[in-house]
Amino acid sequence: MPFKRKDLLGLRDLAVDEIEHILDTAFSLKEINTRSIKKVPTLRGKTVIHLFYEPSTRTRTSFDIAAKRLSADTYSIAGSSSSMVKGETFLDTLKNLESMNPDIFIIRHSASGAPHRLAARTPVSVINAGDGMHEHPSQGLLDMMTILEKKGRLDGLTVLIVGDIAHSRVARSNILGLNKMGARVVACAPPTLLPADLSLMGVEVCFKVDEALPDADVIMVLRLQTERQQQMLLPSLREYSICYGINRSRLAKAREDAIVMHPGPVNRGVEISPDVADGPQSVILDQVTNGVAVRMALLYLMGQGESSRAAAQREESV
Amino acid sequence: MPFKRKDLLGLRDLAVDEIEHILDTAFSLKEINTRSIKKVPTLRGKTVIHLFYEPSTRTRTSFDIAAKRLSADTYSIAGSSSSMVKGETFLDTLKNLESMNPDIFIIRHSASGAPHRLAARTPVSVINAGDGMHEHPSQGLLDMMTILEKKGRLDGLTVLIVGDIAHSRVARSNILGLNKMGARVVACAPPTLLPADLSLMGVEVCFKVDEALPDADVIMVLRLQTERQQQMLLPSLREYSICYGINRSRLAKAREDAIVMHPGPVNRGVEISPDVADGPQSVILDQVTNGVAVRMALLYLMGQGESSRAAAQREESV
Amino acid sequence: MPFKRKDLLGLRDLAVDEIEHILDTAFSLKEINTRSIKKVPTLRGKTVIHLFYEPSTRTRTSFDIAAKRLSADTYSIAGSSSSMVKGETFLDTLKNLESMNPDIFIIRHSASGAPHRLAARTPVSVINAGDGMHEHPSQGLLDMMTILEKKGRLDGLTVLIVGDIAHSRVARSNILGLNKMGARVVACAPPTLLPADLSLMGVEVCFKVDEALPDADVIMVLRLQTERQQQMLLPSLREYSICYGINRSRLAKAREDAIVMHPGPVNRGVEISPDVADGPQSVILDQVTNGVAVRMALLYLMGQGESSRAAAQREESV
Repeated sequence: MPFKRKDLLGLRDLAVDEIEHILDTAFSLKEINTRSIKKVPTLRGKTVIHLFYEPSTRTRTSFDIAAKRLSADTYSIAGSSSSMVKGETFLDTLKNLESMNPDIFIIRHSASGAPHRLAARTPVSVINAGDGMHEHPSQGLLDMMTILEKKGRLDGLTVLIVGDIAHSRVARSNILGLNKMGARVVACAPPTLLPADLSLMGVEVCFKVDEALPDADVIMVLRLQTERQQQMLLPSLREYSICYGINRSRLAKAREDAIVMHPGPVNRGVEISPDVADGPQSVILDQVTNGVAVRMALLYLMGQGESSRAAAQREESV
Repeated sequence: MPFKRKDLLGLRDLAVDEIEHILDTAFSLKEINTRSIKKVPTLRGKTVIHLFYEPSTRTRTSFDIAAKRLSADTYSIAGSSSSMVKGETFLDTLKNLESMNPDIFIIRHSASGAPHRLAARTPVSVINAGDGMHEHPSQGLLDMMTILEKKGRLDGLTVLIVGDIAHSRVARSNILGLNKMGARVVACAPPTLLPADLSLMGVEVCFKVDEALPDADVIMVLRLQTERQQQMLLPSLREYSICYGINRSRLAKAREDAIVMHPGPVNRGVEISPDVADGPQSVILDQVTNGVAVRMALLYLMGQGESSRAAAQREESV
Repeated sequence: MPFKRKDLLGLRDLAVDEIEHILDTAFSLKEINTRSIKKVPTLRGKTVIHLFYEPSTRTRTSFDIAAKRLSADTYSIAGSSSSMVKGETFLDTLKNLESMNPDIFIIRHSASGAPHRLAARTPVSVINAGDGMHEHPSQGLLDMMTILEKKGRLDGLTVLIVGDIAHSRVARSNILGLNKMGARVVACAPPTLLPADLSLMGVEVCFKVDEALPDADVIMVLRLQTERQQQMLLPSLREYSICYGINRSRLAKAREDAIVMHPGPVNRGVEISPDVADGPQSVILDQVTNGVAVRMALLYLMGQGESSRAAAQREESV
């Protein structure tokens, strides 16, 4: 089954069977990463350009490893060091790079919607690697892959998301994806860190984490950006930690088989205690491992699509 | 025909048949960039080192894509992050890297002549990727390739260069190359932005762009560095734009088949208006596409020369 | 003979036959670097991650060239640009990267012992590329390789180390390695730049370089960090240069066949004069060339070990 989309911009756009197809592909590619020779020729001769207008080591490295294990050539353009500093527009930078015949752009940008605007203006495949407070679809997909791997299903599970949901593209992509896949999503945070449209998104709200824990199959802890305190959205990190931090005694209120997730990087002792982050219920490092597999799947499907389109064009021209 | 030169330092050095050989090679390699698998094994096992002492995303990425599509391994040394900061001389840095057995150095430096001085001190091939206000030969070559592609010839054409010619290595390489290939070059700019030796270089001067436009087959617009205003070389960007900016009404005075070029990055609304930059006569993005092809040709010819020299040495030693 | 170690952390740990095995391997791999096609498929599909928490162009590039000539895929994480800035611990960064299934970490860190602490917490092979004032084993190995290449032996040679031994991981690794291999090591520096434990390390001390020179087969000159003057450990660079700088007249007191080494980058005119650095007795650039060979050997042996371990595990599981 060839993937029909040119771009992967967000989980909002995807149908259930498309999400299933991406996750199936990721599960089948995952095994490559534990071989002695971790490389397949699938994307040989393809050009993948990372366009990161926000700093990111973790996501960029994950995409880069995924691309090179599929034999693609990769290039990295950082927003700060690029021609942007000479006053060039974002679209001009993109059009210039497009003229060098790349196959896939992987774009991270602080402006919500930036990858969408660019994708509409280029024939090159665009993968959104995080846009503002909007979406981070590869993170949502790797989180769903990890839940599926550990729980065997998504449908009917209760996923508790704890933390700064209002500012989190990770939460947003998870909510959109989990809803489609039939999971029940409960959000828990101080009111200042909750968005207004949660009920419209099909999310239940709970202000006391201890009340929400007993029902949860999955506890997804979000990173707390320390700048939220300067923005007066929080009294203090210590207060947040006491009320919402997931520690061992709090985790004891959840089911024994509940899993604990975190998109990283972890603020140890703030939103999660070290013994929980490193404990038997934590699947944080499985998320990282699955991140490479999900990104291999996305690059494979985008690259395959490109080949299919090119092949179709060749056939037409014959 | 093997290329005899160890280095590509400037268009001043090249004979007409050498320029033709590079452009022929570029035209024949260009097609690789539109294949589904954009990679040939020509430079497999070759080591290409980017030594950029001035920031550049655009040119470095173009060279890097060219090198990897020929299967070379590439390394990037930035002037600011290198051992230079520890007080090492430029020549010591080069000698150190030379001892790691690279095949080609691609050098950008703010000092005019720096690549020439280094090339004389190393057996490694040196490609000048821009030195001070001196030369930018790969840009000159890609511009000539684009003109040739669009106009079918260089000989007898009138090329109008508009802008800050005094400080432009792009203009300098183009003037040197176009003169050799039989084109007529006309320069147009405020007197403060024209070099003194233009007539010696065989260039005609015109201070009013509107008078020069009707004759032009090619209008090459140069980027205006905004720092020229601080240097008191310009009254204001707005004044410059009014007198020398290429906009739609001004372009209407040129031939219908005249093409508009710009080396990028574009200052939209200063030296060129958006409707001209994106209009039907603009070949700005073709220049970028041809840039990869020209750089593939240079790397191929330098790398081939290296192989030829090594093969010759092996034969001698037998 | 498969290499049994998971990690290469320092020369203190290694037995004589292990050092000999690494150097033998380096001598046999060195020839690859002068081939026309400088690439072998030995580490194809292996993932090598550079984790540099101190800036280094020279050592990183040497390791990177070594890795790519063995066909490994490499990734570079700089300490300053990484998630560390978001408050993540060093161990969390490592565990995250570990979850992406790399084969080898190459770590440089300003804290002595950092690579050792990490190596104990990860199944991934760790190569120490320099830790604080502790060890720089690949430098010690490339120095021994160069001495062996030029002198035919290490046993019984007198190696004079001149300079800031107290703060030098290069000196420390050389002392540990040379001692094991049977060389006599003499240290010469102002008392403020000598560590207290030299005699425990089996090193003879000499405060006057002119007295030590006549006996030396090898003169190893260390780089003088200019910050030592601000730390009041030196009266002035000029004074240091007069008393300890290796210049032509001073070198005339040594044997004619004595070789001069320096780990680079060189402070010309401070610890070494230009005519000595570039003179016939200097082997400084041979050190750089051998650096690539030694790093190829380390990566080959670590990568091979990894394969052997994986193969052993597969056999067990059958």
